[in-house]
Amino acid sequence: MDQKDRNFETQLAAALDSKTKPVGSLGRMESLAATVARIQGTLQPRAETCSLTIFAGDHGMARAGVSAFPQAVTRQMVMNFLSGGAAANVFARSIDANVQVVDAGVVGEPIDHAELVDRRVGSGTRNAIEQAAMTDAELEDAIMAGIELGSAIKSDAACFGEMGIGNTSSAALLAAKLLERPVGDLTGRGTGLDDDGLSRKVMLLEQAAKRTPAKLDVRTALAEYGGFEIAMMAGAVLGAARTQRVVIVDGFIATAAALCAREMSAECEKALVFAHRSAEAGHGLILSALKADPLLELDMRLGEGTGALLAFPLVRAAAAMLRDMASFESAGVSGPA
Amino acid sequence: MDQKDRNFETQLAAALDSKTKPVGSLGRMESLAATVARIQGTLQPRAETCSLTIFAGDHGMARAGVSAFPQAVTRQMVMNFLSGGAAANVFARSIDANVQVVDAGVVGEPIDHAELVDRRVGSGTRNAIEQAAMTDAELEDAIMAGIELGSAIKSDAACFGEMGIGNTSSAALLAAKLLERPVGDLTGRGTGLDDDGLSRKVMLLEQAAKRTPAKLDVRTALAEYGGFEIAMMAGAVLGAARTQRVVIVDGFIATAAALCAREMSAECEKALVFAHRSAEAGHGLILSALKADPLLELDMRLGEGTGALLAFPLVRAAAAMLRDMASFESAGVSGPA
Repeated sequence: MDQKDRNFETQLAAALDSKTKPVGSLGRMESLAATVARIQGTLQPRAETCSLTIFAGDHGMARAGVSAFPQAVTRQMVMNFLSGGAAANVFARSIDANVQVVDAGVVGEPIDHAELVDRRVGSGTRNAIEQAAMTDAELEDAIMAGIELGSAIKSDAACFGEMGIGNTSSAALLAAKLLERPVGDLTGRGTGLDDDGLSRKVMLLEQAAKRTPAKLDVRTALAEYGGFEIAMMAGAVLGAARTQRVVIVDGFIATAAALCAREMSAECEKALVFAHRSAEAGHGLILSALKADPLLELDMRLGEGTGALLAFPLVRAAAAMLRDMASFESAGVSGPA
Repeated sequence: MDQKDRNFETQLAAALDSKTKPVGSLGRMESLAATVARIQGTLQPRAETCSLTIFAGDHGMARAGVSAFPQAVTRQMVMNFLSGGAAANVFARSIDANVQVVDAGVVGEPIDHAELVDRRVGSGTRNAIEQAAMTDAELEDAIMAGIELGSAIKSDAACFGEMGIGNTSSAALLAAKLLERPVGDLTGRGTGLDDDGLSRKVMLLEQAAKRTPAKLDVRTALAEYGGFEIAMMAGAVLGAARTQRVVIVDGFIATAAALCAREMSAECEKALVFAHRSAEAGHGLILSALKADPLLELDMRLGEGTGALLAFPLVRAAAAMLRDMASFESAGVSGPA
């Protein structure tokens, strides 16, 4: 830490301790306020506006039976996002967050809709159980589109969500290869597999994992096992972090994308606020690797950015606390006896 | 459960399961939506508006040295609430919640301020270490004022907060007598006692507890050990619950008040949403007695309603989800394969 950073940290701690409350009594709201202050480089941080960008993409693996839902649901849910009926839309409206839906590579014909952001890299990935999910060129396209979209975000806080039948499988494989863990440790029920479905999913993912060495660099891992929506989200994290947005990281898949982003550029890590500890098995392992402790634990496992949206009001309140709360001196309140 | 209730529960479960998400994938947001639906008796629940009522009162015990802060801070913080500078004000503004400040019995002369609600029962309670904190008549005054204030709340959700130097001691004694537990199990550092301060607090509270039998009925417990602000808050819980408000219960002291309210009328329990698991030792014991599992755990220990205010956006989003989210049928989305 250089002298300038040390001065900032001293001022930040003094500002938090001067507020009319017992020292430390706002707990994690204080550390959250400090995070936003560091991201924005100010003791008067603002997290008043929020947006959600949902990246949708399909996975060749879905046709091998890794999910409880048919692949067609990805496209159907894109239409549901566009008409405002999904959980993510409802949660976004409840906090006045704008929603942008990005086709990163949904299977089938391009979707014709005025409000859809078309950044299609392909018509779904290849089946990663048998071959690389995407080419290096496709991967670069996805990451670059993400960086561009992330850099263009103007809201104080940026939530990223995803939709893609089969993408818990992709996220599990990515994390397994980046963290050098058995993929079974990262595999859960996704949208709701029963015991037989889960056994089959683990078997298929172990088969997929065997194709490559136990540890891969981030670009190889993404090309082999990624989804277009996950690679694009990783790029968006980089873009938003570079432009001083507070990046609110959703659940299992978004955390895997954040892990990929960090592997590409460690600098982005300080922009991240982790929203929700997912009910999906394996999320805890990725969170530990990122030394992250999410703000919420509500037993959710939906994705779409729903956890990030629910965490935004905490981020907003924390920033407002540091910015607007009275000090002992300004309010004429006595300190401890 | 009667037939009407059974029908409602069946319809409620069907409505939640019809939404475009894997069954159960919104976890605690689904049970929260169900709670709001039951309170309001509708499958189209609304939690769009929120208010905060802060009850302030002083405790004779404070002068015996149970707190790290001097008693004058209660009055100073009332002024801080009225000028909008406290954490509770900042959090309330961040969710557009109206704030009402009630003088339930602050020590000294009545506070002259146009926006203060004057329901003073007395100039602080007596020192409960040595004698009953209040008379039966004072207790009834406090409860009745609370019922009246709670019944008058028009917002969908009602948050109750408190301010009173020494009131973690009052709450610990109340819970000890209602739950028949040693008061030491319920005693924590409050606003920030050190080890010596905590030992002294436990010693004083044990002395206070010895004056009466191990188990007391709620009215006796409140008269012996209560604060005016705690008794009034218990009344407000009853009033708000009777008028179908969603009562968002804050931290340690508010939970003790909710326990008192439940002892007075078990019916109020179904109106309660527990917001935050406090860092104050002993909160867990009261929560267990109420079979409550708060939505948030942010290591806060401030009170004032801060935890309740932070939980409100979850309540609002949960109600909106049940009310507004598309169904598989309406959105044309396929179910599990």
